[in-house]
Amino acid sequence: MTHDNIISLDAMGGDDAPHIVIEGASIARARLPDVRFLIYGDETRIAPLVTKFPILKENCTIHHTDKFVSADEKPGQALRRGRESSMGLAIQAVKDGKATSAVSAGNTGALMAMSKFMLRTMPGIDRPALASLLPTSCGESIMLDLGANVECSEENLVQFAIMGAAFARTVLGLSKPTVALLNVGVEELKGNEIIKNADRMLRDANLPMDYVGFTEGHGLANGEVDVVVTDGFTGNVALKTAEGTARMIAGMMRAALLDSVLSKIGYLFAKPALMGLKNHLDPNNHNGAVFMGLNGLVIKSHGSASPAGFASAIGVAADMASNDLAGKIIKDLKLFEAPAEEDLEEKVQ
Amino acid sequence: MTHDNIISLDAMGGDDAPHIVIEGASIARARLPDVRFLIYGDETRIAPLVTKFPILKENCTIHHTDKFVSADEKPGQALRRGRESSMGLAIQAVKDGKATSAVSAGNTGALMAMSKFMLRTMPGIDRPALASLLPTSCGESIMLDLGANVECSEENLVQFAIMGAAFARTVLGLSKPTVALLNVGVEELKGNEIIKNADRMLRDANLPMDYVGFTEGHGLANGEVDVVVTDGFTGNVALKTAEGTARMIAGMMRAALLDSVLSKIGYLFAKPALMGLKNHLDPNNHNGAVFMGLNGLVIKSHGSASPAGFASAIGVAADMASNDLAGKIIKDLKLFEAPAEEDLEEKVQ
Repeated sequence: MTHDNIISLDAMGGDDAPHIVIEGASIARARLPDVRFLIYGDETRIAPLVTKFPILKENCTIHHTDKFVSADEKPGQALRRGRESSMGLAIQAVKDGKATSAVSAGNTGALMAMSKFMLRTMPGIDRPALASLLPTSCGESIMLDLGANVECSEENLVQFAIMGAAFARTVLGLSKPTVALLNVGVEELKGNEIIKNADRMLRDANLPMDYVGFTEGHGLANGEVDVVVTDGFTGNVALKTAEGTARMIAGMMRAALLDSVLSKIGYLFAKPALMGLKNHLDPNNHNGAVFMGLNGLVIKSHGSASPAGFASAIGVAADMASNDLAGKIIKDLKLFEAPAEEDLEEKVQ
Repeated sequence: MTHDNIISLDAMGGDDAPHIVIEGASIARARLPDVRFLIYGDETRIAPLVTKFPILKENCTIHHTDKFVSADEKPGQALRRGRESSMGLAIQAVKDGKATSAVSAGNTGALMAMSKFMLRTMPGIDRPALASLLPTSCGESIMLDLGANVECSEENLVQFAIMGAAFARTVLGLSKPTVALLNVGVEELKGNEIIKNADRMLRDANLPMDYVGFTEGHGLANGEVDVVVTDGFTGNVALKTAEGTARMIAGMMRAALLDSVLSKIGYLFAKPALMGLKNHLDPNNHNGAVFMGLNGLVIKSHGSASPAGFASAIGVAADMASNDLAGKIIKDLKLFEAPAEEDLEEKVQ
């Protein structure tokens, strides 16, 4: 007998809510037959949408609230006023053990602040991090932190590495993922003190990951490693730079292919092949950033995700919950702490 | 009567030196009839190459040295041993006023260290920065620092903004370029203290630039602003991420287009249109990073540049030298200092 995996949804977050949330949930449910949903938001708008999807209707409960966190609300405001909002109630369901994870396409800053405040960080983790899958030339890699912390200590980076490796073992199914710190060069003397210290700490530790040292900006797209670890400032800039570059090239390619009669003919012939590429790079297929390191799972969907994109984010939530991500992280943190204690004993003796 | 623009070349730096350097110089000379070259390196290898290009031969002087800085030499080593190398002599020519600028495709760290040590920073500039043109969806933008300084203060960032704007006025021919600080969001409360302070200082200053505040990672590829200012760590990661993403997509597109008979036919028709795009994104066409803020111009070419790419770097050097980049920066620094002094007077009164 399989237990139900219950996921709470903020139905009011995102550019085209609640429509994409409900349709996304319906797509996800078709793929994941053991998933059920707690849907939080304006029932008068949600109920008519849910009715369109009979299987979803049978596997969800709608909880009405007329409060929601708007896209331009400051995190502090959301913290003060958002507890009864669709976002706040979805997180509360995780805290109360009613749901294994929460998914929202709403205001990132508010979601981060409320999740951190309501769920608190796991023992051994000082700060949560935002992690996501990114397309590479040979599949997918994970990067974190994508913007939760603009400044990070070496301990934070080490904890991010542990959480990222647990993510890779859970979602990419790797037993010993390769992990690297993002830096301006691969030689040991490159980078600032924080990154050099984190490198030393990870080299010395005995963790269920293959720590390979430093990687550079191109390492991201090349898929050189499974997990790229960096502070939230650099990670956010790198993520948006990669997305922006991909979008620029796609846009210019489209313009080039529609530029002349000849190129349009070429486009018609090449279209099926190019669609595969488009598919691989489509952010909707890699949607679902995870707030890692909290006592409960919260997944952030792109605000502009399509229903299929929102369904991807739900898929990440379901994977994480059924593979005990939190358990893996706690176990690995202990492994990391153990050798440090031995070192201390050696020094004392 | 136009004065000659004399450029010194490190003929021994780069993956395929001295061949690409000499062929690059020949291409550049054909475009820039008032340019002459001082070429430093192994004469026995350089002279036979130069003989192939009669016009170049008439407009260059070869200075023999059998010393050169290798690709894996540490900056400290290069500083101690590199004065008589092809790289050191090319920089020395600028210092001695024999050349208006130096171009090298050699070891970046060594070039940076030697340039800084030999030429010293300009009055009013605390640290030099590495700046370059990058392709965007609507043309070209300038980004700095690309890796000279892994940690920067707010004053450094302000000085980079001034230098970047002078670069844009010189090379892009803009009278009042738009300038932004790279950040994780565009709202004023985003980012760390250093970036927020730099933002405030730039807002308050009255400079020949249109300072627009913050830009994010996508702003780079979108060409939202003419000059993107950031610290050397973030800039280096963003540059390499953009290059890596572009290369990944180009590689996958090539594979997709050659995947089936149909797509190959399509490729044949679309090829002329796609070549335009390839051209725009080719790093060789945007080659030539400038060490800004020194008492003399030093231009770094990609180590793997083609002869045409090396010629682009020479083109940047020639532009900068003939448009008095240094004069612009010194003037703008004074403008920046002026209002600060007035503020002080107000407070004293």
